[in-house]
Amino acid sequence: MPQTAKRRKTKVQHPKLRVIPLGGLGEIGKNITVIEYDDEIIIIDCGLGFPDEDMPGIDLVIPDITYLEERKDKIKGLFLTHGHEDHIGAIPFVLRTINPPIYGTGLTVGIIRNKLKEVTLPSVPDLRVVKPGDVVKCGHFSVEFIHVNHSIADACCLAVHTPVGTLVHSGDFKLDLTPIEGDVMDLARLGEIGKEGVLLLMCESTNAERPGYSPSEKTVGASLEYIFRMHSDRRIVIATFSSNVHRVQQIIDISVKHGRKVAVTGRSMLNILAAAIELGYMTVPEGVLVDVSEIRRYKPENITLITTGSQGEPMSALHRMTFNEHAQVKINPNDVIVLSSSAIPGNEKTIGNIINELSRKGIKVINDASLAVHVSGHACQEELKLMHALLRPKYFMPVHGEFRHLTAHRELAKQMGMSPDRIFLGEIGSVLEITDNSASFAEKVTAGNVMVDGTGVGDVGDVVLRDRRHLSQDGLIVVVATIDAYEQALISGPDITTRGFVYVRESEDLIEEIRELTTKVILKTLRDNPLDRMTIKNEVKESLGQYLFRKLGRKPMILPVIMNV
Amino acid sequence: MPQTAKRRKTKVQHPKLRVIPLGGLGEIGKNITVIEYDDEIIIIDCGLGFPDEDMPGIDLVIPDITYLEERKDKIKGLFLTHGHEDHIGAIPFVLRTINPPIYGTGLTVGIIRNKLKEVTLPSVPDLRVVKPGDVVKCGHFSVEFIHVNHSIADACCLAVHTPVGTLVHSGDFKLDLTPIEGDVMDLARLGEIGKEGVLLLMCESTNAERPGYSPSEKTVGASLEYIFRMHSDRRIVIATFSSNVHRVQQIIDISVKHGRKVAVTGRSMLNILAAAIELGYMTVPEGVLVDVSEIRRYKPENITLITTGSQGEPMSALHRMTFNEHAQVKINPNDVIVLSSSAIPGNEKTIGNIINELSRKGIKVINDASLAVHVSGHACQEELKLMHALLRPKYFMPVHGEFRHLTAHRELAKQMGMSPDRIFLGEIGSVLEITDNSASFAEKVTAGNVMVDGTGVGDVGDVVLRDRRHLSQDGLIVVVATIDAYEQALISGPDITTRGFVYVRESEDLIEEIRELTTKVILKTLRDNPLDRMTIKNEVKESLGQYLFRKLGRKPMILPVIMNV
Repeated sequence: MPQTAKRRKTKVQHPKLRVIPLGGLGEIGKNITVIEYDDEIIIIDCGLGFPDEDMPGIDLVIPDITYLEERKDKIKGLFLTHGHEDHIGAIPFVLRTINPPIYGTGLTVGIIRNKLKEVTLPSVPDLRVVKPGDVVKCGHFSVEFIHVNHSIADACCLAVHTPVGTLVHSGDFKLDLTPIEGDVMDLARLGEIGKEGVLLLMCESTNAERPGYSPSEKTVGASLEYIFRMHSDRRIVIATFSSNVHRVQQIIDISVKHGRKVAVTGRSMLNILAAAIELGYMTVPEGVLVDVSEIRRYKPENITLITTGSQGEPMSALHRMTFNEHAQVKINPNDVIVLSSSAIPGNEKTIGNIINELSRKGIKVINDASLAVHVSGHACQEELKLMHALLRPKYFMPVHGEFRHLTAHRELAKQMGMSPDRIFLGEIGSVLEITDNSASFAEKVTAGNVMVDGTGVGDVGDVVLRDRRHLSQDGLIVVVATIDAYEQALISGPDITTRGFVYVRESEDLIEEIRELTTKVILKTLRDNPLDRMTIKNEVKESLGQYLFRKLGRKPMILPVIMNV
Repeated sequence: MPQTAKRRKTKVQHPKLRVIPLGGLGEIGKNITVIEYDDEIIIIDCGLGFPDEDMPGIDLVIPDITYLEERKDKIKGLFLTHGHEDHIGAIPFVLRTINPPIYGTGLTVGIIRNKLKEVTLPSVPDLRVVKPGDVVKCGHFSVEFIHVNHSIADACCLAVHTPVGTLVHSGDFKLDLTPIEGDVMDLARLGEIGKEGVLLLMCESTNAERPGYSPSEKTVGASLEYIFRMHSDRRIVIATFSSNVHRVQQIIDISVKHGRKVAVTGRSMLNILAAAIELGYMTVPEGVLVDVSEIRRYKPENITLITTGSQGEPMSALHRMTFNEHAQVKINPNDVIVLSSSAIPGNEKTIGNIINELSRKGIKVINDASLAVHVSGHACQEELKLMHALLRPKYFMPVHGEFRHLTAHRELAKQMGMSPDRIFLGEIGSVLEITDNSASFAEKVTAGNVMVDGTGVGDVGDVVLRDRRHLSQDGLIVVVATIDAYEQALISGPDITTRGFVYVRESEDLIEEIRELTTKVILKTLRDNPLDRMTIKNEVKESLGQYLFRKLGRKPMILPVIMNV
């Protein structure tokens, strides 16, 4: 009987492997992936994101980890690919509710340790340092750290060996055949793993739209060398990403070669430099670093100043220098400013503000438009193809990118010959269920943004943001009146207060019109519905709103406050 | 005696020529230049600007023309270089207070005529059509229109012949050696004028940072042709700038060649298309244009849809299509969307939103990153050098650009051998005074931004914008209390209302704390300063502000309203 025959062939039913990106898909940043098998969960990365322009006042965005909080006991470990904020930045927040062992390489853990000094946590974090090549056994999983190149030292991709098969998560990577320090990414091990068989590849997509290869970090050194030679009579100020340890190392090396002392300004730059030197990720000869307060003692041409602020951030050291607000550094037209960075999309304007102000002051600016002073840390199309070719995965899920990037990465995989039904383009909260011979999306789980505003985490949501956007567009009008509801009388007011609406001193007539209109509305509504403050409020909102839109084409927020004595 | 000899040689003292840019320097857009000699003024261009991210709620920015309003009788004419918004967009506003004759080429005046239909003006505008090559005599000035290439048809640069010498204003231009329609820019006439002698060149600087030449508009045609061939089985939707008459012409020509009908959507696209066809700037064979409501009657592969929204503008036709809000067009994964444009700095995110949403829907997007589907309309460095070489001006003022662009243009002029003391890098309101043998900056005059918000012009200023920004960051708290100052009693309240601060339903404890704190503060202040409402308000602001910053790290706007009965 065919049915019996079929049943006989059926293998023991393993639980499915579940892969759940809780962040990093359809967005840049906030990278976090859950891998679940049977009653065990491991997490890869736990990053933060930066607010969009439609999130006014928000400082940071962290992933919604409800799914993990409801399964605390299953979580066996958090594995980190590298120490960038978009991969580790949410850790201080999530440790308030979960506390798994955290595994990462030396620099990664060093950076986290520094961050955690600034927060108070319910329990002691369990940080465990690993080396590239290490394999961490963790319940059903064993997680292998594999060296890759990236714009921060000590970056790894992860091979997660599971009972169902091997999953590879690329982390962020590029191929640098002439790295500043350490080795080329571990192509040989990736090739071996590919031969052994890869069930699922999750690969970053940041540069999936960019053809070719990302140039080696070493090419930046050549440009910097040129700048130092051409400006041997001037102070050189270089802004770059604080975490780019190799970039900073190159700047220091070239400075030493040209007989310059190096000063560093900007809190994050100082923090990471200290950690990198302490942990041996950076080598600075004795006597080269000087405190920024001491640079006046040297001739300008003997100083290199390394600073934060390459994205034009308003509180950064470069911004303060540019607008004469830096306590210790006054820049002048004899300085050369190098922006050793590229604009993160959305920051073009803030960076432009810096360049314009420096230009206005007659200060020379060199950026990546004029010289090759920056390279990306992310794999471009040919490097992504290399990863696919080495690993030859059965299934593929593009990760880390907006939909345009994920889509471009899918097209690339198709070009490599991958069948479209083996490519899974997910969203955050999508659950990909995998057996050894099938993969498909299952249900969706809770995932999303938790907004951090000041010290508040999650107390600002969509309603509050909608109000902030509304207030920012046309301001507000507060109408305050005290009534005696029983006497149907207006006892005092209405007082009209506006903010962000019109310049009051030049709009006295308008304010008077508003007062007259609202007085009429309140009195009429009092007569018709004497005991109903809500109706009075609604009538004021509606009548005044219509009046102002007709008169000015604006829709300020209207806030009627009706007090009853 | 040498002194007498000198005096004898002194020529009759002519008045100085005064050149005053009232907009367009240190900014992109809002281009307007005043040229003044003796008791006569002419104006070149009168454009609008778009609000920066620090101007929430503002729709448009127009130049402050106080200087002109105070000299109405001197104004002899407004001369327009071309019909782009940043050169003509402020005309409907300035015609409320001044009404000079307006000179422009056919398309330019046609576009203005359309715009003016929508507004009510105190007097009839005096629009005068000229042709390239025409010279308009205007008091002491004679203004010559010289054909240039640009991303709109009928663009000119202006040679203003004055008693002191000839001034050339480049307008916006590029050199297109294979233009779609009409001639290459009039190099010969520019060369002649250069030979006759140019006192001052004012030249646009938009692309002064870009090396090389801007490619010909014709190169876009080749890319579009390729796209049409590769997607002969699909509907093609192309978004571009509505004013780019030549681009639209190319799209129509290629569509005709491939047997497609063309539909157009987006108000500005329809307006300009109508004007361009009517005035003969565009040629469309009979039966090619179909109404967008009729495209369902045709097979998708027989339709090209031209649309506005290439900058991702939220109300544009492309945006509405992308987010399924367009009444007549439903796009689907069989369509190909072409963004025949590049991002105007600051629009990267809104354009990204469109690309991401289309990618999420599985719709193919082609933009200038993947194919050469756009060229700039502005001269790059080699073209700017050509302008300088042809005109060989005595003095030079870079115009149209942020400071980075003006500075780059100054460097370019220096490379061409110009002495730095003949280059005048001004700001808006700078007055450049020129005689036949000298030039120098004189006083500064009123210049700046007048903000347009809804129908209000100039009633929103810095104070209002500062409040809007403050409100958008942390929201507001309104504290309303009714007191009896004589009895030193709190009669009702304090009522606490918040907007954009925290999600109230989940923050009842916090609101209660705020109520208790403010009650205490009001009662205490009432006891100490019984008749002083201002002190009560200040105390509430200060105490509550400090409390919230300590507790939440936020600084909402606090608005105390204290009513006295």
